[in-house]
Amino acid sequence: MTNPPTVMAALEAAIAASEQVVGTTSPNPPVGAAILSAEGELVGVGATQPPGGPHAEVMALRAAGERARGGTAVVTLEPCHHVGRTGPCSHALLGAGIRTLYYAHEDATPPAAGGAEWLRQQGMEVHRLDVEVPTLRPWLRAMALGRPHVTLKCAQTLDGFTAAPDGTSQWITGLEARAWVHRDRARRDAIIIGTGTALADNPSLTARTPEGELLERQPRRVVIGRRSLDPERTSNLHRLGFEQYDSPAAALAALWEEGARDVLVDGGAGLLTSFLEEGLADALQVYVAPLLLGEGRGTLCRPLARTLAEATRLHQRSLHQVGEDILWELTLDRDEERNPACSPE
Amino acid sequence: MTNPPTVMAALEAAIAASEQVVGTTSPNPPVGAAILSAEGELVGVGATQPPGGPHAEVMALRAAGERARGGTAVVTLEPCHHVGRTGPCSHALLGAGIRTLYYAHEDATPPAAGGAEWLRQQGMEVHRLDVEVPTLRPWLRAMALGRPHVTLKCAQTLDGFTAAPDGTSQWITGLEARAWVHRDRARRDAIIIGTGTALADNPSLTARTPEGELLERQPRRVVIGRRSLDPERTSNLHRLGFEQYDSPAAALAALWEEGARDVLVDGGAGLLTSFLEEGLADALQVYVAPLLLGEGRGTLCRPLARTLAEATRLHQRSLHQVGEDILWELTLDRDEERNPACSPE
Repeated sequence: MTNPPTVMAALEAAIAASEQVVGTTSPNPPVGAAILSAEGELVGVGATQPPGGPHAEVMALRAAGERARGGTAVVTLEPCHHVGRTGPCSHALLGAGIRTLYYAHEDATPPAAGGAEWLRQQGMEVHRLDVEVPTLRPWLRAMALGRPHVTLKCAQTLDGFTAAPDGTSQWITGLEARAWVHRDRARRDAIIIGTGTALADNPSLTARTPEGELLERQPRRVVIGRRSLDPERTSNLHRLGFEQYDSPAAALAALWEEGARDVLVDGGAGLLTSFLEEGLADALQVYVAPLLLGEGRGTLCRPLARTLAEATRLHQRSLHQVGEDILWELTLDRDEERNPACSPE
Repeated sequence: MTNPPTVMAALEAAIAASEQVVGTTSPNPPVGAAILSAEGELVGVGATQPPGGPHAEVMALRAAGERARGGTAVVTLEPCHHVGRTGPCSHALLGAGIRTLYYAHEDATPPAAGGAEWLRQQGMEVHRLDVEVPTLRPWLRAMALGRPHVTLKCAQTLDGFTAAPDGTSQWITGLEARAWVHRDRARRDAIIIGTGTALADNPSLTARTPEGELLERQPRRVVIGRRSLDPERTSNLHRLGFEQYDSPAAALAALWEEGARDVLVDGGAGLLTSFLEEGLADALQVYVAPLLLGEGRGTLCRPLARTLAEATRLHQRSLHQVGEDILWELTLDRDEERNPACSPE
């Protein structure tokens, strides 16, 4: 079946709305919803509000008001069917008089699942859209794995170095890339570094504007490693507050318990390598600057393979030019490249 | 002055024609020309033929025939004004009744220069176009430097390795990237490698189709280094023929003398590093595969800088997705980013 063009346009609007709330919804997914009136006019768009607030469907229905009656709902994720902190979206859609539902990803989470089937039983026309919504990828993968989705981030020269032989590393990438990094931080539930990086750089791990002002949303600041962090050398983290865990697995378990679904590992090489070795990396975000050093500190610090055939293979998600630098985003898992809800793990 | 849209369309056609002859024209530049009739209709397009054959203007005029009279010529390079193996293009344009000339790059080569000025003196309306024609870049830079334009090529993992710890390097990049590499080879005057690569890989240095058949045009095969090449271990080069030189400078001098203007250095790390250290590299072509090794053989093998501020900075020319890999093309010289004929070195 071909989906009507108005449905695809509504899906675009729903995805765009969900983009705006990424980083504010955990442990809930950043969902987007759009409502078409009975005449096919786009009459409401909404996205998931912070935990305890309305879900995307309810926001979109509110915007549509009476014009939702007899209309179509287009949602990036199957409407939830359980009473959590808010009522089930399945009931809200039915109550508002929606006749037709299109949704992209299945919600396989046990307590929330079953919304589509229930609505079908109530006589609603329900369609699954065969598209992947990138904004939902981390949450879906986190739910499948039972731990936060992990993105490894690095900034390196063309020839693969994150610092010069003398240790200098600021700034490998340009201003535009740094602005991207900070916007991205505000979309994550936590920023994680190793104790070595904490001690060497005295970082703040905050999300800031290019002018240095704090963005509205700040991720949790997490340090992994057993070394104690001298308050003098890590004054910024001590001033702002941080969490420390012994290992990647311990950090992810604790972060998951407290609702984190999408976290970023920001170095150094030892910690990035540990996440890869332990199979705890889902995506890689590599900023590459048009610089050559010839020698320096590598992005990783231990061999992942002895021979080329055993190299860790990634899969491209996106490639951007960011000023003079490039940003290449990749995943480590081919299976999630297509709509992952199609084949639950 | 804004250039009429027909002129810009003619320039596009001229550039497209010149693209087709890259690799076949050295020591002459791969020029493209287009003729607009007096009514502004595109009536002829041509490009430089192999040495001794007609230049682009003559090919375009032949295609246009009588419709060139009273028309406009649009050429990527200033028409030559000297009698070499062919007559001067300046005379050909005037003789065909061309009234107006647009050209992009100046030809500053002493014997050929002066075409535009002479045509102006003969009463032709002559305009310089403020655009850069990428196909001419290597030739223009070669003429400015008095040596072939040098592109360094490498194929590496995301983390900057060209081979795994055990030495395996085939294949880092995918089929599509390898097809690009071979098409690119056919557009170069010479492919250069070091003796170490020759001995380790027994390469053919030929330009082939994905099915392994030789492309029509083959670059010269060049090896740099003092080690003698055991005919057993380098049987392919011995079968096909090759040139050997002691050093990058010696190779470039000899290649220049024999007409090479655009050459590619295809490894290994030692030779790439030498070209960079000696200031003999103009461009870098890096294929990056979505692989991580953690450890292995680096793209370069000696430090170019001790501290980040002294790193070699490159400037992006183009970025392509090639199958699962990316191809990033960069130059080492900012000055040539804009039309270099504007400020002759």
